Amino acid sequence: MTQLSTVILGASGYTGAEAVRLIMAHPKLKLTALTANRHAGKSYAQVYPHMAHQGLPDLVKWQDVKWDGVDVVFACLPHGASEDVIADITCTRLVKGLTVIDLSADFRLKDADVYAQTYGRAHTSPKLLAGAVYGLTEYARTDLKGASLVACPGCYPTASLLALLPALDLIDVDNIVIDAKSGVSGAGRKESTAFMYPETAEGAHAYGVGTHRHAPEIDEKLGAALGRDITVSFTPHLLPMNRGMIATINVGLNQGVSVADLRAAFEARYKNEAFVHVEVQGVVPHTRHVRASNQCRIGIFPDRNPRRAVIISVIDNLTKGSSGQAVQNLNVVKGWDETLGLNMVPVFP
Amino acid sequence: MTQLSTVILGASGYTGAEAVRLIMAHPKLKLTALTANRHAGKSYAQVYPHMAHQGLPDLVKWQDVKWDGVDVVFACLPHGASEDVIADITCTRLVKGLTVIDLSADFRLKDADVYAQTYGRAHTSPKLLAGAVYGLTEYARTDLKGASLVACPGCYPTASLLALLPALDLIDVDNIVIDAKSGVSGAGRKESTAFMYPETAEGAHAYGVGTHRHAPEIDEKLGAALGRDITVSFTPHLLPMNRGMIATINVGLNQGVSVADLRAAFEARYKNEAFVHVEVQGVVPHTRHVRASNQCRIGIFPDRNPRRAVIISVIDNLTKGSSGQAVQNLNVVKGWDETLGLNMVPVFP
Amino acid sequence: MTQLSTVILGASGYTGAEAVRLIMAHPKLKLTALTANRHAGKSYAQVYPHMAHQGLPDLVKWQDVKWDGVDVVFACLPHGASEDVIADITCTRLVKGLTVIDLSADFRLKDADVYAQTYGRAHTSPKLLAGAVYGLTEYARTDLKGASLVACPGCYPTASLLALLPALDLIDVDNIVIDAKSGVSGAGRKESTAFMYPETAEGAHAYGVGTHRHAPEIDEKLGAALGRDITVSFTPHLLPMNRGMIATINVGLNQGVSVADLRAAFEARYKNEAFVHVEVQGVVPHTRHVRASNQCRIGIFPDRNPRRAVIISVIDNLTKGSSGQAVQNLNVVKGWDETLGLNMVPVFP
Amino acid sequence: MTQLSTVILGASGYTGAEAVRLIMAHPKLKLTALTANRHAGKSYAQVYPHMAHQGLPDLVKWQDVKWDGVDVVFACLPHGASEDVIADITCTRLVKGLTVIDLSADFRLKDADVYAQTYGRAHTSPKLLAGAVYGLTEYARTDLKGASLVACPGCYPTASLLALLPALDLIDVDNIVIDAKSGVSGAGRKESTAFMYPETAEGAHAYGVGTHRHAPEIDEKLGAALGRDITVSFTPHLLPMNRGMIATINVGLNQGVSVADLRAAFEARYKNEAFVHVEVQGVVPHTRHVRASNQCRIGIFPDRNPRRAVIISVIDNLTKGSSGQAVQNLNVVKGWDETLGLNMVPVFP
Repeated sequence: MTQLSTVILGASGYTGAEAVRLIMAHPKLKLTALTANRHAGKSYAQVYPHMAHQGLPDLVKWQDVKWDGVDVVFACLPHGASEDVIADITCTRLVKGLTVIDLSADFRLKDADVYAQTYGRAHTSPKLLAGAVYGLTEYARTDLKGASLVACPGCYPTASLLALLPALDLIDVDNIVIDAKSGVSGAGRKESTAFMYPETAEGAHAYGVGTHRHAPEIDEKLGAALGRDITVSFTPHLLPMNRGMIATINVGLNQGVSVADLRAAFEARYKNEAFVHVEVQGVVPHTRHVRASNQCRIGIFPDRNPRRAVIISVIDNLTKGSSGQAVQNLNVVKGWDETLGLNMVPVFP
Repeated sequence: MTQLSTVILGASGYTGAEAVRLIMAHPKLKLTALTANRHAGKSYAQVYPHMAHQGLPDLVKWQDVKWDGVDVVFACLPHGASEDVIADITCTRLVKGLTVIDLSADFRLKDADVYAQTYGRAHTSPKLLAGAVYGLTEYARTDLKGASLVACPGCYPTASLLALLPALDLIDVDNIVIDAKSGVSGAGRKESTAFMYPETAEGAHAYGVGTHRHAPEIDEKLGAALGRDITVSFTPHLLPMNRGMIATINVGLNQGVSVADLRAAFEARYKNEAFVHVEVQGVVPHTRHVRASNQCRIGIFPDRNPRRAVIISVIDNLTKGSSGQAVQNLNVVKGWDETLGLNMVPVFP
Repeated sequence: MTQLSTVILGASGYTGAEAVRLIMAHPKLKLTALTANRHAGKSYAQVYPHMAHQGLPDLVKWQDVKWDGVDVVFACLPHGASEDVIADITCTRLVKGLTVIDLSADFRLKDADVYAQTYGRAHTSPKLLAGAVYGLTEYARTDLKGASLVACPGCYPTASLLALLPALDLIDVDNIVIDAKSGVSGAGRKESTAFMYPETAEGAHAYGVGTHRHAPEIDEKLGAALGRDITVSFTPHLLPMNRGMIATINVGLNQGVSVADLRAAFEARYKNEAFVHVEVQGVVPHTRHVRASNQCRIGIFPDRNPRRAVIISVIDNLTKGSSGQAVQNLNVVKGWDETLGLNMVPVFP
Repeated sequence: MTQLSTVILGASGYTGAEAVRLIMAHPKLKLTALTANRHAGKSYAQVYPHMAHQGLPDLVKWQDVKWDGVDVVFACLPHGASEDVIADITCTRLVKGLTVIDLSADFRLKDADVYAQTYGRAHTSPKLLAGAVYGLTEYARTDLKGASLVACPGCYPTASLLALLPALDLIDVDNIVIDAKSGVSGAGRKESTAFMYPETAEGAHAYGVGTHRHAPEIDEKLGAALGRDITVSFTPHLLPMNRGMIATINVGLNQGVSVADLRAAFEARYKNEAFVHVEVQGVVPHTRHVRASNQCRIGIFPDRNPRRAVIISVIDNLTKGSSGQAVQNLNVVKGWDETLGLNMVPVFP
């Protein structure tokens, strides 16, 4: 089978490593370059020993990638850096025919002002931004077909939007309360006292209360679906686990709407989806039950308050929340079977 | 110093073991009997090896305790059992002069109908129930003085009520959304596949969504403070950690109320408390920062939605959420310094 | 592609679940029945929620399996039970043409007396035992080809034997000291206080000191290679992790043998192996670097004592230590590419 | 009660924080200064939020401590720094009457050449070194009385020496194999990718194989007891837990010596010790059973090889392995009850 030549920019982060893992299992992709400017010249095994003994290319600077014949780029760079590098490759170097799947935040927000407020820097590539497709795959298939630049959603937005979009007509959209929880890999691999084992094990805490950068992304995408601005309540927490994410969403039901109606809406929307599953009544999804898979599972429950309901969504933040959805998006861009390379069963325990 | 003779009923559970730990450090208490009917005849070290080499009494059946001279009982039994044993000791055997500190759910709910619905059994000791003091210490000092039966609050109610009672005049009490998280020790020590390491480590999940037994307790106590019935939204989660509990509470602010007003109310209420601390602005409490201590720490934050706020409360579920508060209650019953035996610094990391 | 009809006996244990995960990814195998007598009648998702939404067959009693057309059986039953069930199927029911891959201890020990002493029951199927092939794949290929009954090694023996067999001519075989460590999944899924989260998290301990059942298996297989009896020192430990196993082996070097000689022997032996890797000098293998993969990685180091050396071997106890090696064995039995279905990259973090 | 004015140098590390915790519970000590040059000017709660609400002094540079009236110094600095600072205080500034309890490695090794080889720097305070008492408390009481400079043993040496010193006459001292395991807090609080949660959770690995700096310390102290040089085999491992340490020691028994003899020697040596306990036959010590306490527990077992035995020792690396033993040493220096401030029961779970 012919395989597309694939480059990963920023292969030394956790989303980069997850992209490597998934691409190695993908029948139509072949890794031809891995970049990490801080680690250029090292073998990939020096940075990620679990990838030893696999015949992977050594790490290079992104400037040193030979672009001839490259078909696909997964950009796993930090925000800011990603925009600059993608602009350089596609606008300055004029590399042609690339499909760029960006996992950073740089092309997620359509509103450049919100981007500037949220990420503290002006967006410098408005043309690229205008052409980027927001790749919440299940809601973007038409736009994704043949796209050249895909912005993969943040992990929290992925878990939250999949759990809210089918409900927008049924709930009080002005009082959506999202209590979210993430594993530590979501913080990336940059050394930091805050994420050392003794500081994150055996305990839990909220962070970025009222200020997390993923919340404006949720607002914008829900707002686009609704046709008006909204502001969600969003409180993320850090949990002592490597992978996994929960969004526990408490919503008010509109007049005349029952929890059964809410459930029916989700079941109708997702019944043909390969990766998004509505749990049967009474089953609570666990993060560990989607570990290392591209699944999102959603549970729907009556709240104690009879006018409210609870929607719970779980994903693996590195897979469906990042690199898995990135591969799923590429599959749609290329017109391949959407599940190609993504059919792995969750790893439990 | 004269020490009161103290008996622990149900010393083989985690709250029993925590009571043993705390009482051993209490200058005015002396352990004279430990009961555990399933393990009667064993040394305590056979059940809890961490307690070896301490000269503790062997485990006996509660029926075999010699009650002459006993001053204090900590009842760490399961609900149902606790009520029966306490009734037997105080009403049938007519043991006199005992102070009974009950850590079970049996005397927490004043409304016996709610008890019956919640715990699936009728309450059989209405007189004892009528006389029991609900021991959320900071709100019960007057009633606790000299009390003979104290019902210690559940762990979730402790974390939630301390974070809501000062706010009731300032918030929309009909739409309180509590997202709570607990360490695994809260499930007790009874063997169960659900709480084995591989089933609870490296992941997280909600449970008892809409149905947890601690929620009616929160309703009743908030309702008593308000003078009318309310129903809170309450979704608990199980986290991969031994100890620790968070209540993340999202509330709507009443017209004209600011987050600063909310903070001022908490600071005023708790400024003289030894164990309840309001964190300075911007500081998020972690469960690991109160580990093995009797502290409750509360953070107050603006929500993204300008008409809402976030209140976050953390405790150690076994200490302030159970055996620590039990000792604190006894200190008040006896008129001792409320912090006696409870001044341990949190254990970190 | 034609797929062989495959049955898993004992699919409700962790090795059963791991076998399901691996077989679902195997292009030449198709799961046609899953048995678990305690859970017969349930969907597999009721027992293992991570396997929901996969279209797997419901659980049945092993007695109710329809054997017509079945090609392959993975027996993931407890020892004792496994022998009885396999004997019933192959000797009583006379099911023909089956390949039985047994993951229990029942056919590992060739010496029935040692089996009786170690497992506390007499072996009742001496003919089956005589025909069983001990499936430490890398050392059993000739015998495995076309075998009808394969006994997969224990997890500790797998890690230990792969790290000792190339060294036998170079070391003092009468003073081999194996210090081994395992994740909690090795204890299986039977509910037990000892393996609950609070009893196994945040700490470590040895167990079965001097008495672990896997040690006689190591003795027998090393003894067979040496042509004489030996007794290894073997101390296993339980670590707070789901998956993973280390054997840290301290050995005396024979006169004139250097650590470089030892390394050379391992490199020569394993240079063409797909799953057993000798780490480059100075690299220490981590269990997390083989997680959920079929790899064994071996590090070789000088000890501080110049006449001794340290050999460190890591595997995932559920994969190379159990179900992965089982699939690898089947691949050899059938003459397929040995890596079929087993090329997954380790999952990290 | 009069309390001695106590200073902690290097209060921002984990041993510093543990010293703060223990000293706050000590009836004869009062913290008057906490130093941390990198964090000077911050409140202690900014560095260690678990210590908030305790009225502790702010952090200062060690150069800014007012030494008048200071009685006791706990030096919790990195090696190298510790020697320099202690020399400056006692030799340059000539502060008089101080008791210095050093928790670093700088005064542990009596042989300055071994120090230079091991720590990569020459020792510059030979006079201080000559006067320092190696504070393995149970073996140093005579020298500790009234000492002015105490070098607290490393954590691995503490666990190992307590488990070997009573055995030296009974075992083959030239083939001692120590397989040791530590929790992550032993690595200190300096940010580092290697100790981030995702790199250390859910897995285990050896490190410093053949080269760990604590091994020469074990050699020197065993050698001093024996009157001749020896070299132990020593392989440390990092485990996914905050606190806790195991030394699993495999030894050959001398001709005519039985495991019962070995046990008897340990029981005789430690029967009157407050903190070192020999477990009853068959009981395996767990690290979690000494958590946050000053205990060392030792188990003694027959090996499978009848000429060998297994000695297992567990401590909390931050308590008996560091700050707890430091306080114990001070108690002996001052002639106080050795258990003062150290009678806390282990925290479990």
